[in-house]
Amino acid sequence: MSQHQTSHSDKDRVVIFDTTLRDGEQSAGASMTFEEKLAVADLLDEMGVDIIEAGFPIASNGDFEAVSAIASRVKNAVVCGLARAGSKDIDRAGEAIRSAKRGRIHTFISTSPVHMKYKLQKEPHQVLEAVTASVTRARGFTDDVEWSAEDATRTETEFLLRCVEAAIKAGATTINIPDTVGYTTPDEYSALIRMLIETVPNSDQAVFSTHCHDDLGMSVANSLAGVRAGARQIECTINGLGERAGNAALEEVVMAIRTRNDVMPYWTGIKTPMLMHASKLVSTVSGFPVQYNKAIVGKNAFAHESGIHQDGMLKHVETYEIMRPEDVGVKETNLVMGKHSGRHAFREKMKDLGYDLGQNAFEDAFNRFKDLADRKKQIYDEDIEALVEDGITSAAKGAKVIALTVIAGTGGPQKAIITMDVEGQHITKEATGTGPVDATFKAIKAVVPHDATLALYQVQAVTEGTDAQAEVSVRLSDGGRMATGRGADVDTLVSSAKAYVAAMNKLMTHRQKTAPDVDAPEPVKSSERV
Amino acid sequence: MSQHQTSHSDKDRVVIFDTTLRDGEQSAGASMTFEEKLAVADLLDEMGVDIIEAGFPIASNGDFEAVSAIASRVKNAVVCGLARAGSKDIDRAGEAIRSAKRGRIHTFISTSPVHMKYKLQKEPHQVLEAVTASVTRARGFTDDVEWSAEDATRTETEFLLRCVEAAIKAGATTINIPDTVGYTTPDEYSALIRMLIETVPNSDQAVFSTHCHDDLGMSVANSLAGVRAGARQIECTINGLGERAGNAALEEVVMAIRTRNDVMPYWTGIKTPMLMHASKLVSTVSGFPVQYNKAIVGKNAFAHESGIHQDGMLKHVETYEIMRPEDVGVKETNLVMGKHSGRHAFREKMKDLGYDLGQNAFEDAFNRFKDLADRKKQIYDEDIEALVEDGITSAAKGAKVIALTVIAGTGGPQKAIITMDVEGQHITKEATGTGPVDATFKAIKAVVPHDATLALYQVQAVTEGTDAQAEVSVRLSDGGRMATGRGADVDTLVSSAKAYVAAMNKLMTHRQKTAPDVDAPEPVKSSERV
Repeated sequence: MSQHQTSHSDKDRVVIFDTTLRDGEQSAGASMTFEEKLAVADLLDEMGVDIIEAGFPIASNGDFEAVSAIASRVKNAVVCGLARAGSKDIDRAGEAIRSAKRGRIHTFISTSPVHMKYKLQKEPHQVLEAVTASVTRARGFTDDVEWSAEDATRTETEFLLRCVEAAIKAGATTINIPDTVGYTTPDEYSALIRMLIETVPNSDQAVFSTHCHDDLGMSVANSLAGVRAGARQIECTINGLGERAGNAALEEVVMAIRTRNDVMPYWTGIKTPMLMHASKLVSTVSGFPVQYNKAIVGKNAFAHESGIHQDGMLKHVETYEIMRPEDVGVKETNLVMGKHSGRHAFREKMKDLGYDLGQNAFEDAFNRFKDLADRKKQIYDEDIEALVEDGITSAAKGAKVIALTVIAGTGGPQKAIITMDVEGQHITKEATGTGPVDATFKAIKAVVPHDATLALYQVQAVTEGTDAQAEVSVRLSDGGRMATGRGADVDTLVSSAKAYVAAMNKLMTHRQKTAPDVDAPEPVKSSERV
Repeated sequence: MSQHQTSHSDKDRVVIFDTTLRDGEQSAGASMTFEEKLAVADLLDEMGVDIIEAGFPIASNGDFEAVSAIASRVKNAVVCGLARAGSKDIDRAGEAIRSAKRGRIHTFISTSPVHMKYKLQKEPHQVLEAVTASVTRARGFTDDVEWSAEDATRTETEFLLRCVEAAIKAGATTINIPDTVGYTTPDEYSALIRMLIETVPNSDQAVFSTHCHDDLGMSVANSLAGVRAGARQIECTINGLGERAGNAALEEVVMAIRTRNDVMPYWTGIKTPMLMHASKLVSTVSGFPVQYNKAIVGKNAFAHESGIHQDGMLKHVETYEIMRPEDVGVKETNLVMGKHSGRHAFREKMKDLGYDLGQNAFEDAFNRFKDLADRKKQIYDEDIEALVEDGITSAAKGAKVIALTVIAGTGGPQKAIITMDVEGQHITKEATGTGPVDATFKAIKAVVPHDATLALYQVQAVTEGTDAQAEVSVRLSDGGRMATGRGADVDTLVSSAKAYVAAMNKLMTHRQKTAPDVDAPEPVKSSERV
């Protein structure tokens, strides 16, 4: 049943193109800091993702810098930058991926009647000319060029055929057929991919690719239907992050191929025991929690009402399980460390959990571990993960929480006193509010005045037990821009303060993203996506 | 594109069988109180669900009572009770649905080799005999009998054919083909359903039904593939609640059929503008949050990064939207009421939101609204929904929170003083803890000593703004049993206390569920499911 039991053939190899850092990060409220993007890219690379779409270089200087940095550090994966059809976009993407061992430019243009008419305000012949010009220009930077027909599933067949033919002729090596609005069904999508491969001259010179959104809940089935029809690249994201209802989830497409290898005889290079770790990291940095009944990586995905007491499971594990939890990195939660654990034990544990920290980051994590051990009796793997990932998100520049005191009660109003570090200065303010969280956030606002409003507030316990660390996600909104921050601490109010400050810091950095570069001929609008 | 634009034909009518109260409630940690089940059943009935599977009557007295009460009150839907193949099971289900206008018995037995051998420890001929006997017995109670082949997708074809034939011959009017382990693919499932309909003698005397789990992320596509092959009933749940990764989500299958009516020319009787309300109610009573990028009902499902400023959307709404938010009940959040709003305005608002409360419940809700208005400046629709639903969950019997005071701070340890009503007596206790939530929960444990441990803790803000009400979900675990409670208040710590107490109360009531009725020949194990 597993890919390891069958002999591999190149023609059955499905390339995994992860767009968590581009389509995922583009989704409302999911923006990530530079440091967070690097952490995600490192993990994707180690997990065996074939292509990492690292960003949209012309969208902002932040995006450009993240793509460049990822291009420099990634060891195995191809690093890809997104570009519209214009030459400024393509040049910027080419520059961003220059330092990659293997770099790809992904250029796209809308081909559906509704998009051409209302969004591009271009005639079909102008779009067709842009296809040739954009792919040709991209080939000047790299031999690895992907072309996407935005809104392909609502495009007229004849026109789509002409565009794909033109893209291949101009040198595109990957042809992506996005279901931009999450509209298609498996039969329809499979027929579309098959028709293109059978009809377009020289279709064998390019790899066909799927990019399916989940608006009607069918993105995984659609992606796999595309593969069955001959596509050999799947574009997907960790946790199905992405615009609106998101993209096909990487963990689902990979595990479906692996589990049902009897009817889907393909294989990928993904190290599946890292899937759970990837899911947690992306949930953390995006601030998007994973629902309990999410396939593969939800808390309940392998849960049975009465755990091991469950009758059928005891009798034979295959009765209800089609995957082994360890194959996706779900481990029995185990007690690992306490206040007497030393530096050496902590270093070994970090290795086990897949973290490879530099000396400074390690010392910082170890100090925070000792601090946590003073406050929490039993420290689990998840606690260590939360602690390290809290370090990743709090390493970002900006204001920091130093101390917090809250006096709360049903009597109200609640009062919070906060001390923060703002550009090296310690500032203390107090505020009253409706509930302790409101009081805390108002105190922060007194230290760093701003206009953002709280759009989402969410807390999750990291492990079981009432003294568990709480991970808080805070999404702030400011004039249409949104940013999510998170914080972890055994005290929910301290987590809340850290999360709020992280989101606030991101929002301030993120501002530039909607202000286009001065030399970009057409500013990137948030409507431009694949 | 909508069902309203096409003429309806009976042969294209897809019956929606909702199993939120059975398969959904059976999932780890999602157990609901009696009152919560009635509230969900009322909403499903009003929304146009055709069959409500209300529970598994022999599993516990609580299940029996819920199915009986739902059978008595439901106005339009068929009310269904689940039963294994044994006569005690079937008699109990028959008794539970007796007062229904239209009642159904759903009886099942495993047909796959692995289930027959390890779970049932029966030979195929014994299983086949049980099919005939169980359906025949069920027909003694009602003409509406559904038979399910548990683990059908892993059953040998010849044996499945014989079982289905026997079930129809014995009088089953619905034949359900569950993908119990979430294993199948659209092509495979479609071929299976088609083969059964084409091969089984008298297959036209029964409606074929899909029941797909989402372990590989394909439950929606599989269900729709089954319909395309001739199935005319879909078993599904609100929010895709259910065992492990859950069932096909009702909102996704219904909206997929409606949105892609051009390629799926079927129709259902669901009033889609009620979907969002149903999603929120089920999320509330189960304590399972809906992830932001969940299709149809996630917070991000209709979100675009820059809201209405977004260029493509402004130019033409169809550019990125394939469904209108209002078609699934997503409204612009609107400011509705404040402290000066009176009883009449509140009653009108309740009607708008779809609540039909009795006089006592209305007065109680109005009082809590006035109390909220004193503490929160702007009151939105969602606040009113949280307030009413908090009333539904807190109406359950058991201990209650009266007052809470918390003193918290980075200095620690935090301290909580709680007053609770326990069987009419007010008891006050205090406790210190690691963080304010830990201190609060320890104080509750001092009032009502118990052994349960905290398995999950989650908080979500109901609306935007730092003074929003917080909805807290708490899942407690006690020796393999689990229960989730929730609470809403503008103060997260008060919400937390209410949620903890609600879960604790449920766990105490829920205890009987794993203790089988004395007269049941075979106790129901948690491994028994469809």
